[in-house]
Parts: sequence; structure tokens; C-alpha cells
Amino acid sequence: MKSIGLILVAGGSGSRMGNTIAKQFISLKSKPILQHTIDTFLSWNKDLQIVLVLPENQFDFWNSIKDLDRSSSYRLCIGGKERFHSVQNGLKELSEVDYVMIHDGVRPFVSSSTLDRCLNALSAHDSAIPVISPSESVRMIENASSIHLDRSKIRLVQTPQCFHYKKLKEAYDCSYENIFTDDASVFEKAGNKIHLVDGNIENIKITTPEDLVWAKTYLKRTNA
Amino acid sequence: MKSIGLILVAGGSGSRMGNTIAKQFISLKSKPILQHTIDTFLSWNKDLQIVLVLPENQFDFWNSIKDLDRSSSYRLCIGGKERFHSVQNGLKELSEVDYVMIHDGVRPFVSSSTLDRCLNALSAHDSAIPVISPSESVRMIENASSIHLDRSKIRLVQTPQCFHYKKLKEAYDCSYENIFTDDASVFEKAGNKIHLVDGNIENIKITTPEDLVWAKTYLKRTNA
Repeated sequence: MKSIGLILVAGGSGSRMGNTIAKQFISLKSKPILQHTIDTFLSWNKDLQIVLVLPENQFDFWNSIKDLDRSSSYRLCIGGKERFHSVQNGLKELSEVDYVMIHDGVRPFVSSSTLDRCLNALSAHDSAIPVISPSESVRMIENASSIHLDRSKIRLVQTPQCFHYKKLKEAYDCSYENIFTDDASVFEKAGNKIHLVDGNIENIKITTPEDLVWAKTYLKRTNA
Repeated sequence: MKSIGLILVAGGSGSRMGNTIAKQFISLKSKPILQHTIDTFLSWNKDLQIVLVLPENQFDFWNSIKDLDRSSSYRLCIGGKERFHSVQNGLKELSEVDYVMIHDGVRPFVSSSTLDRCLNALSAHDSAIPVISPSESVRMIENASSIHLDRSKIRLVQTPQCFHYKKLKEAYDCSYENIFTDDASVFEKAGNKIHLVDGNIENIKITTPEDLVWAKTYLKRTNA
């Protein structure tokens, strides 16, 4: 069986949530969002090696949250300036594994099916990136104008972005560039191929107060 | 002052909502979503000429809904097979105006600022299309592979899509094509230019049960 590492990146502050508490710590059904995310992965595969990347000034708070399921084991690691640097730090903290998944801490609703699709794809490909189709028309800015893109060819990228560990580690041995908005872009820049798999639409990034209500309703409806 | 027509397209059935009632008729704060949308526009400009495009088999139901504000006047018009055909029908029903806005019936939360931006843009441009930036990385399928797009150049298209009436009417004098996922694509195909303006992120298309809860919370939070 392949060994799998999970790097959970949770660098958010509370700004967009209109909240003083960072969004990853907000409670859903008396459990922080971040813990929901951890539990989602552990219920899919209890043998994951987990590294949790947090801003250093949030370590104490995270450790102080009561009622946390302390049975889930993970290493804490200090976040960096950009997401890119946080993942770099996480990769240094992770022991060598076969595969590595990089996931946003505030996406607790990735489905087991999505995770299965990612894992299965890695047996034939160097990477597995879950994506969904946009429900809106899409345009691209070009000079002072814009062009209509064929929506059927556009995909919005989710996480976990999954890779063969050694190749991702090599790819991240570089300097930050503005185009690095996710791990796939870093991996690709290093000359590797990106393989897409279907994500799931519930796998949202909880960012706004409305997202939070969405999440509560989703939890209630699915009885998760 | 310029005369403005509004074509509200509400062709949805209840399928994605897991509901027997079509989503545009679902009640939010004891008022159908569609009526919220009508009210949003009328509170922005009470002199709009409104054409409401509905599937023919929904006319009776819409007319039977109690507690509807019957003071808002609009003409009903029969929807077509695709959104394209519904808009074509709506344009035939509309009397001549200076500007026309085409809007999804289930987007009640377009802001006055967005509508102002659209209207202002039409004094200098033939079209005004509200867009937002995606919060996710974006890829485009190419052959058996995919490429990373520069997210800063990508825009997701909302409604109302706004046009100089005569030019849109001419543009819609054509046959349906698969690439016509919105009015901007029809307008552009006819050789016209597309001008983008900023939309607002709350201007979502209410499609799923979670969207509905989002909408309820948003109404409560904004006290709208």
C-alpha cells in the first residue's frame, strides 16, 4: 500500500468573515472547521501522515480549543508569506511518502469519491487535480478587450491537489512567482504533467458568512 | 432619459432543487424568488418595461400565487427550448426601447451599484456585462491535456447583460449555436464589442437547496 502525506494549509485570518476568529477555527456543530477537514480525511484513510500548516501566532489558539479530538495526530508547521511558502514549509516537515495531497484547511466537504478518484489516478499519473465545471459563462481579458471562452473546456480547480511526493518536492525547489496560485501551477512550471479528475461541488472553500451558513445547512442535510 | 426594457428569463424546473416547485417560485420571506428579482429592479428604476419569460405550463401557477404584489406590471411571454430561444421570444414581446437588460429570474441579489455601473457604461458602449473574478485557479482543457490560465485575466459572467436594444435585436436574428451560453456570446458573434463592468458577488443564481439557505441568510443579514 502506498504511503500518503497530507499537507493542510490553513493560513486564513478572519477578515473576509467579518470575524476576529480565523475562519478555520470557526465552529460548525461544536467542532472547528479545520477539525472537520482533518476528520474527513482520517475517515477516508486513517493512516495518513498529516502536517498542519498554520500562522505561528495561531498555534496557541489552536492548541487551546477545547473538545478537540486529540486522537488525531498531526505535526504543526509554521505558515509562510504566500500559500506557496506555506506548502514549501509543509513539504519540509513531512517525512518521505509515496504520494502527497495538498488541501485547503477550510474545505471540509471533499467527498470520499473525490479522494478515491485522486488516489486511483496517481497510480497512472504524476498528479491528480480535482476540478469542477463553472456554472457561469467565462470570459478572458485580452488587452483592452475580452474574449468568450468555451465554457465546456473550462475547469475551476479545487483541492486536494495530489502528486507523487518526490516530483512535487523537486518542483517546489524554486522561487515564488505570481502565477503560482495553486500547487498544480508550481508542478507544471517544473515541466510536469497535470492530470484532472472530477471534484465534487460541495467541496467549497468556506470564506464568507454565507458560506458558513451553507456549510451548517449542508451538515444538517447530510447528517454528517 | 433613456427607456429601458428588462427581459427576465425564468425557465427553470425544480429538478436541481430536489423540489416539485420550480426554483423561481420558491418562497423567500413569503415572496417568490422571482418577485424578489422583479422588486429589486423596480426599486432601482420604477419605469422599467418588464417582460417575464416563463415556460407556458407555469403561467397558471405563477398567476395563482397569492400575496403577490400585483402593482408591478409586466408582460408574460412563453419561453423557448434553450435560453437563447426564450430571449428571442422576450425581445419580440418587448416594445422598442433604448436599452435592454437580460436577467436570470433567480438572481434576486444584483445590487443597485451593479445596475448603475451597467447603465452608465451603456452611454459609452454598446454592451455592459457584469462579471466577477473567480476565487479558484482556472484551467482549460486542450486536446487530452489542460493548461493553467492566468486567473487574474478570467472573469465569470453574471446578469443582467445589458445592450443597446436595436443592436441586440439584430444580433438575435440568427439561428441557435451551442456556444451561445449567454447573451454576450450572441452579441459578440454578430460582430459587436463586449464591455465588462464589475458585478457583485452576492448576485448568485439560486440553483441548489444550499443556495436557497444562503439566500435566506443573506436576506436576514442585510434586512432586505
